[in-house]
Amino acid sequence: MISASLTKEFEAVVGSENVFTSEPERQAYSYDSAVLEPVTPALVVRPTNSEELGKVIALCNENNCPITVRGAGTNLSGGTIPDKRDGIVVLTNGLNKILEINEEDLYAVVQPGVVTAQFAQEVAKRGLFYPPDPGSQAVSTIGGNVAENAGGLRGLKYGVTKDYVMGLDFFDVNGQLVKTGSRTVKCVTGYNLAGLMAASEGTLGVFNEIILKLTPPPAASKAMMAVFDDVNKASEAVASIISAHVVPCTLEFMDQAALKHVEAYTKAGLPVEAAAILLIEVDGHPGQVADEAAVVEKCLTKSGATAVHVAKDAEEKFKLWEARRNALPALARAKPTTVLEDATVPRSQIPAMVAAINDIAKKYDLAIGTFGHAGDGNLHPTILCDRRDAKEFHRVEEAVDNIFDVALSLKGTLSGEHGIGMAKSKWMEKETSRATIDYSLNMKRAIDPNNILNPGKIIAG
Amino acid sequence: MISASLTKEFEAVVGSENVFTSEPERQAYSYDSAVLEPVTPALVVRPTNSEELGKVIALCNENNCPITVRGAGTNLSGGTIPDKRDGIVVLTNGLNKILEINEEDLYAVVQPGVVTAQFAQEVAKRGLFYPPDPGSQAVSTIGGNVAENAGGLRGLKYGVTKDYVMGLDFFDVNGQLVKTGSRTVKCVTGYNLAGLMAASEGTLGVFNEIILKLTPPPAASKAMMAVFDDVNKASEAVASIISAHVVPCTLEFMDQAALKHVEAYTKAGLPVEAAAILLIEVDGHPGQVADEAAVVEKCLTKSGATAVHVAKDAEEKFKLWEARRNALPALARAKPTTVLEDATVPRSQIPAMVAAINDIAKKYDLAIGTFGHAGDGNLHPTILCDRRDAKEFHRVEEAVDNIFDVALSLKGTLSGEHGIGMAKSKWMEKETSRATIDYSLNMKRAIDPNNILNPGKIIAG
Repeated sequence: MISASLTKEFEAVVGSENVFTSEPERQAYSYDSAVLEPVTPALVVRPTNSEELGKVIALCNENNCPITVRGAGTNLSGGTIPDKRDGIVVLTNGLNKILEINEEDLYAVVQPGVVTAQFAQEVAKRGLFYPPDPGSQAVSTIGGNVAENAGGLRGLKYGVTKDYVMGLDFFDVNGQLVKTGSRTVKCVTGYNLAGLMAASEGTLGVFNEIILKLTPPPAASKAMMAVFDDVNKASEAVASIISAHVVPCTLEFMDQAALKHVEAYTKAGLPVEAAAILLIEVDGHPGQVADEAAVVEKCLTKSGATAVHVAKDAEEKFKLWEARRNALPALARAKPTTVLEDATVPRSQIPAMVAAINDIAKKYDLAIGTFGHAGDGNLHPTILCDRRDAKEFHRVEEAVDNIFDVALSLKGTLSGEHGIGMAKSKWMEKETSRATIDYSLNMKRAIDPNNILNPGKIIAG
Repeated sequence: MISASLTKEFEAVVGSENVFTSEPERQAYSYDSAVLEPVTPALVVRPTNSEELGKVIALCNENNCPITVRGAGTNLSGGTIPDKRDGIVVLTNGLNKILEINEEDLYAVVQPGVVTAQFAQEVAKRGLFYPPDPGSQAVSTIGGNVAENAGGLRGLKYGVTKDYVMGLDFFDVNGQLVKTGSRTVKCVTGYNLAGLMAASEGTLGVFNEIILKLTPPPAASKAMMAVFDDVNKASEAVASIISAHVVPCTLEFMDQAALKHVEAYTKAGLPVEAAAILLIEVDGHPGQVADEAAVVEKCLTKSGATAVHVAKDAEEKFKLWEARRNALPALARAKPTTVLEDATVPRSQIPAMVAAINDIAKKYDLAIGTFGHAGDGNLHPTILCDRRDAKEFHRVEEAVDNIFDVALSLKGTLSGEHGIGMAKSKWMEKETSRATIDYSLNMKRAIDPNNILNPGKIIAG
C-alpha cells in the first residue's frame, strides 16, 4: 500500500490528474503481452515533462517503491509487469514529443513515449528513413524499443534498435541525469552507457531523451512471395540466399499452420495449401534491386519453390506484409493461450531449427504455428494452447525447454528480440555462465542499491 | 616491485619465456602513442592461450597488481600506459588466432591479439568484408579496436568497431568467463555487455574471444580528389554532400599544412598549393556508384572545387589513400611533439569547426595541420610543437581546451575515436555530467573492487 501522504507527494509533482489510484485504473497496467500472472500496481503515475520524471524517480527511491516504466505494454517477456512489492507504474505517454529531426546531420531526438510508427512517418515526410520496425510498431514506443532492443522485419539488413541509438540521457535512481553518446556519428567519451541501456529492460535507468540515427531511404524495392510444398525446401532457400551474399531487407517465413490462421483472419490471398511460404523484399539502388531480385529468384527456384509471385505494386506488397504482421493476432484467435517464443539461431541453422520445432510439436502433441524473421535466424514458434489445461500446459513448458536446448545446441540464443523479462531469466545461466549472472548482479546492485528499477527482470535468478 | 616469488607464480602459469623482467624489456611497454609521461611496468606477461590469460588475471587480482592489457600500443590517449602502482602489462600478441570465419552466417570469431589488417585480408580472401579500418590497422589489434571502439575512414557509411561486435566473452577480475552476445544477428539474452565492453578501455574486463559481423563486399567503388582554393569551400562541400543524401564510404579532409607535410613525406602528387582537398570514395552496386559519384561531383563543383580528379584505377586510388593514411607520421616528422586531437562535431558543423581551429591556431601562435574524417565530423587538428618548450606547451594546452569548448558548443564530443584514456578524463564532466561520472564510478567499483583493471583510465578524474 502506498500511503495517502506519499500519493499526495506524487500528486504534488505531476498533478492529481496524472496519478491513478482506483482499482480499475491500476488493473489496466497489471499485465503485458506475455503469458504471465498479472500484478496490479499500487499506483500509476504519468509525468509530462523531464523535470517531473526525474522527481518521480527520486521520490520512488527515497520511499523504496519499485518503478516499472511502461510504454505501450507490448512486451512479450513480462518486462512491463509491475513488482509485487507496492510497484509503481510510470507511464511515458505524457512524454511523447519528437524534439528534433535534423535533416542535415541525419539524426533525431525524441522523448521515450513517442510511438515508433508515428516517428517513422514523421521521418519519412522529410525524405529520411528510420529502419527498425518491430511487429508492434503501430503502438510500441521508442523508449520501450530501446529498453528491449527491439528487432523487427528489417533486422537482417538494417540491424536492430541499438544500432540506431547514437546517444541518450537517462535518470539514475536518484533522479540525476546521466548523459551518454552524442549527436555525432563517432563518440567515445566515457563508457558506452547508451549501448548498455539497450536491452536493459528498465533495470538500470529511466530514459529521458533518445538520439536516433536516420539514413537516406532506399531508392527502390521489390517484394516477392515464394511458395513451397515442403518446409525443408523453404528453410534451405533461406540459407542459400544468404550464402549467395544477398542480404534482403526482409526475409520472412510462415509455415502451413501459421498460413491457415493468418489467411482466415486477413483474407490476403495466401496459399493455404502450401507447406510454407517465404516473403522477401530487396531494396536499395534500382540496379541493385534488379540484380538481387534475380539472384533471389534463382535461389528460390533452385531450392524447389513451386511458385514465385512478384508483388506488382506497393498495394499488393502492403497486403502481403500486413498479413505477415498479423500473424501473431491471427494465431492468438485460435486458442485461449498463445505462447510465442523467439529462440534464434545462426541463419544457416534455420533448416535444423524448423525440423526440430516440428519434431517437438509431435513429441509433446502440441499445435505449433511457426512464422518469423527467417533471414536473421529469428523464428517465432507459437504454441496454441489453453493455460487452464494444467496437463497440456506442462507439456508446453517442456516443449519450450526443448526449443531452447535445441537453439543453444545450434549456437543460437534464448531470445532474439523479445527480451528476458520475467519469463526467461531461469534459462539465462544455461546460455551464458554463472560469472555472467554475477557480473550483471554486481553491476545492477551498485547502480540501484534499493533494487527499485524494474526489479525481478532479466537476472531475477 | 613484484616479488621474486610472485614472478615465479606468473612463470608457472605462462612459462618463464613469457615473463619479461629486465629493464629494457619492460621499458618497451612504458608508453603508447599519446603525448604523456611513460611509466615502466613492473612486469610484462605474455599468455598464449585462454586458460593462461584467465589465470594471469586471477593472480593479479589476488595480489592487487594493476593490469594493463596491450595490443599494439597505438593508443592515442594513454590507454596502454601502465599504472604506477607496480603495473603489469599483459601482451595479447600470443593470443592472435582467427578461430572461425563463417561464410554462411557472415561472422568470424577471433582472439584479441589478431591484427586488424591481417584479419580483414583473411576475410577478403573468402569474398567477405570487415569494414572498420582505423588509421593504425596495419599493426593495431582487434582487442585494442574493441577496447577503444576504434573508428576509421569508413565510419561514415559503415559505422565503427562496436557496430561489428556481435558478442564476446571476457574474463572478469576473478578470471571467470563472462559471455555476452551471440553468433546470431539478433540477441537480447541479458545485458548488452558486449556493447558496454566497446570503448571500456580495459577497465571492465579482459577480452578472450570476440565474435565479429562480416558483410558481403561492395561490388564497385569510385574514388576522387577535389581541390579547393579556400578551406571554407571544402568544408561546405562536405555538408552539401551529406545534405544531398549521399553517404560516401569515405570523405576525408586535408588542409594546406597537412598537405605540404604529407606530400614531402609520400610524394603522392598531392596539390600542395591547394588550401584544402577532399578525398572521397563512394561504393556499392555499380549503378549506385555511378549515380552517387555524379551527385558528389555536382556538389563539389557547386561548392567551388577548382578541380576534381577521379582515380583512374585501383593503384591511383591506393596511392591517394595511402597518402592520407600517412598524414599522422608525415606531420609527426615536422616537430618533436605531435598533439593529435579528435574533437568531433555533427557533420553540418564542419565549416564552423574548421574556421574555429584556424582562429585558435592564430590566437595561440601555433602550427596546426588539420586532416581527418570530415564526413563524420571527426577532424584531427594536429598541433606541431616541442614539449620541452614550456611556454609553447602551455599555449598548446590552452588551445586544446579551446578546441574542446568549441566542439561542445557545436553539440559535438571530446573524442570521436581516440578514447579518453588518461589524456582527457579531466574534461569528461564538461561534456556529460557529475551524475554520469558517479554512475560510471559506481559500476566500475562494483565490477573491479580492487581497481586493478587498467586503473586511472576514463574516469580517473
